Amino acid sequence: MSKGRLEAFSDGVIAIIITIMVLEMKVPHGGVDLAALRPLAGVFSSYVLSFVFIGIYWNNHHHLFQAVDRVNGSILWANLHLLFWLSQVPFATGWMGENHFAPLPEALYGFVLLMAAIAYYILVRAILAHHGRDSRVATALGSDFKGKISVVFYLFALPLAFMSRWAAGGIYVLVAIMWLIPDRRIERRLAKS
Amino acid sequence: MSKGRLEAFSDGVIAIIITIMVLEMKVPHGGVDLAALRPLAGVFSSYVLSFVFIGIYWNNHHHLFQAVDRVNGSILWANLHLLFWLSQVPFATGWMGENHFAPLPEALYGFVLLMAAIAYYILVRAILAHHGRDSRVATALGSDFKGKISVVFYLFALPLAFMSRWAAGGIYVLVAIMWLIPDRRIERRLAKS
Amino acid sequence: MSKGRLEAFSDGVIAIIITIMVLEMKVPHGGVDLAALRPLAGVFSSYVLSFVFIGIYWNNHHHLFQAVDRVNGSILWANLHLLFWLSQVPFATGWMGENHFAPLPEALYGFVLLMAAIAYYILVRAILAHHGRDSRVATALGSDFKGKISVVFYLFALPLAFMSRWAAGGIYVLVAIMWLIPDRRIERRLAKS
Amino acid sequence: MSKGRLEAFSDGVIAIIITIMVLEMKVPHGGVDLAALRPLAGVFSSYVLSFVFIGIYWNNHHHLFQAVDRVNGSILWANLHLLFWLSQVPFATGWMGENHFAPLPEALYGFVLLMAAIAYYILVRAILAHHGRDSRVATALGSDFKGKISVVFYLFALPLAFMSRWAAGGIYVLVAIMWLIPDRRIERRLAKS
Repeated sequence: MSKGRLEAFSDGVIAIIITIMVLEMKVPHGGVDLAALRPLAGVFSSYVLSFVFIGIYWNNHHHLFQAVDRVNGSILWANLHLLFWLSQVPFATGWMGENHFAPLPEALYGFVLLMAAIAYYILVRAILAHHGRDSRVATALGSDFKGKISVVFYLFALPLAFMSRWAAGGIYVLVAIMWLIPDRRIERRLAKS
Repeated sequence: MSKGRLEAFSDGVIAIIITIMVLEMKVPHGGVDLAALRPLAGVFSSYVLSFVFIGIYWNNHHHLFQAVDRVNGSILWANLHLLFWLSQVPFATGWMGENHFAPLPEALYGFVLLMAAIAYYILVRAILAHHGRDSRVATALGSDFKGKISVVFYLFALPLAFMSRWAAGGIYVLVAIMWLIPDRRIERRLAKS
Repeated sequence: MSKGRLEAFSDGVIAIIITIMVLEMKVPHGGVDLAALRPLAGVFSSYVLSFVFIGIYWNNHHHLFQAVDRVNGSILWANLHLLFWLSQVPFATGWMGENHFAPLPEALYGFVLLMAAIAYYILVRAILAHHGRDSRVATALGSDFKGKISVVFYLFALPLAFMSRWAAGGIYVLVAIMWLIPDRRIERRLAKS
Repeated sequence: MSKGRLEAFSDGVIAIIITIMVLEMKVPHGGVDLAALRPLAGVFSSYVLSFVFIGIYWNNHHHLFQAVDRVNGSILWANLHLLFWLSQVPFATGWMGENHFAPLPEALYGFVLLMAAIAYYILVRAILAHHGRDSRVATALGSDFKGKISVVFYLFALPLAFMSRWAAGGIYVLVAIMWLIPDRRIERRLAKS
């Protein structure tokens, strides 16, 4: 099976998630001065954060499938599973943003990110199982260090959220920055071959 | 006519249905503890179920059109007819989920699934009529056993919903599991040719 | 310029219009019997009508661009103009459906259909101007009889809406049926060449 | 890396922004005469303006990527940055439209347009850095006069909004008209090569 439709469908779902999220910021009806915008500051920041996170996943998804040659049923379902958890990001961000990073909402946010990271990891495994250990995508991915370390970071952040909201939040930002750096490994190795 | 735009349009419509459905889960405003999340449990489960059902249809649509060579006006309209019934799934799921699987909502849910199954069957017929009995897609599809048995199951479930909500619900889950198993027939036969 | 992105963008916009429209049918909160569904009957029928209309435009758009070889700036803007009027269909349908085909809402509905028909006509002209009178698309389109007669029908329907809602509504249905018949001319002539 | 998915994802996001914006015009519930439509006139005009602006960006994006051969991580992120600011256009337009072009909403509208213009400029730079000064896209773009002059215009309009709403609004319209003229430079130069 060719990968074209899986990419097109994923693009559609991720485009809707990332856009709807920003459009949910509602026009204030109270006034036309800066005071009317101030209550939106928290919501705006949390949407910027989620925009970056969803952008990161789209970017990595794009890099990953550059090296994929063909797909099968397992890859289709592993991809749908990833899209499901990504579609939970707006809910988790909204709850966390509205409640100023209270412990449970912050932990739920981390849980959704953790499930998305695990889903991405499963997707990578499904692709490697279909292409073999000596394939172009296996060579390009290497040890998948980022994928593994993200899961470890989120597992640490979950209990931390109930102790210090800053520590847990800091870990989320750290993971975002780590992923924000584009995966030059794949670009480089694809360029070589 | 090439099949590219039919696939792209279907991907767009299905991506919107599956994503909007999940985004309809609203952030709770009452608190930041587990009690605030509890009322969402029922809605969440019903959306997971619908996510799986829409995912199944996208998956089968993808498998089916792998083997399709060209489309005509009948196939375009049979496909739009399928998309129409799929777009009714969120409404039916929402009504059933909010009313804890009451008889009429559960029967309506089954009715929408029945109409989607019939629409899929009509789509398969339109494709076979255009490609001929000896075509690659006819060979790949075989007897279309799953399509026929689904219609039979739903016809049984409709009156059952008014007698036992568990029996009808169980049939829906059964059909979902049956379809969840990827259609390896098509994959296998395409691989051969 | 290639036509690929114009088709993809149009597919996206039309997919959103057709899907959002159906999703706007809200779950009833009053009960779980047939009486709870009855108030939705009018809204449901009007959405079915709009689904068919938008489906017709997508179908014709698809047929039309099959025969198009390349696009320019005028075609891009003529296409955006068509998409703008199509995006007004949900508003007009909603107003007409909620008010049981009252004169002004019914006339507004006809006005939006008229503007969409004119926009489609302008798009066809822009394509012919870019391809020339002897091109494949010019041969395939022939005299564009349907496009011209639709505009005439809508111009008749507008004043009629203030006299008899049945007459105006009948004209809308007539035009829909006329377009529902797939444009076999293009299919046939493309098959020949 | 090929540019296909970047184009598809951008098409998806821009299609959602442009469509959702128009669909936000709500059906009036007060009556079925012209008086019921009158309050919508302001909102309708502001949505038409935004439809044109988003249409311009899609058009220019399309023209720009016609000449692009390949993309890298920087281009992906520069593109996501542009999409982020475009996704703020509906919010800014809504606030400005509802408040009859009051100073602060009008300045915020200009600010969002300014950020989108800067984001487009950064995207062009990222593309040129990846393709080199002698590439086809560099030749096609020329001096990028429109991109630079837009930024200057918006910088003038921002303080003007607090002095005269007509002057600032006039500048926005002026920039829109300037961009509305299709970028024939790229079309012409691509046609030559």
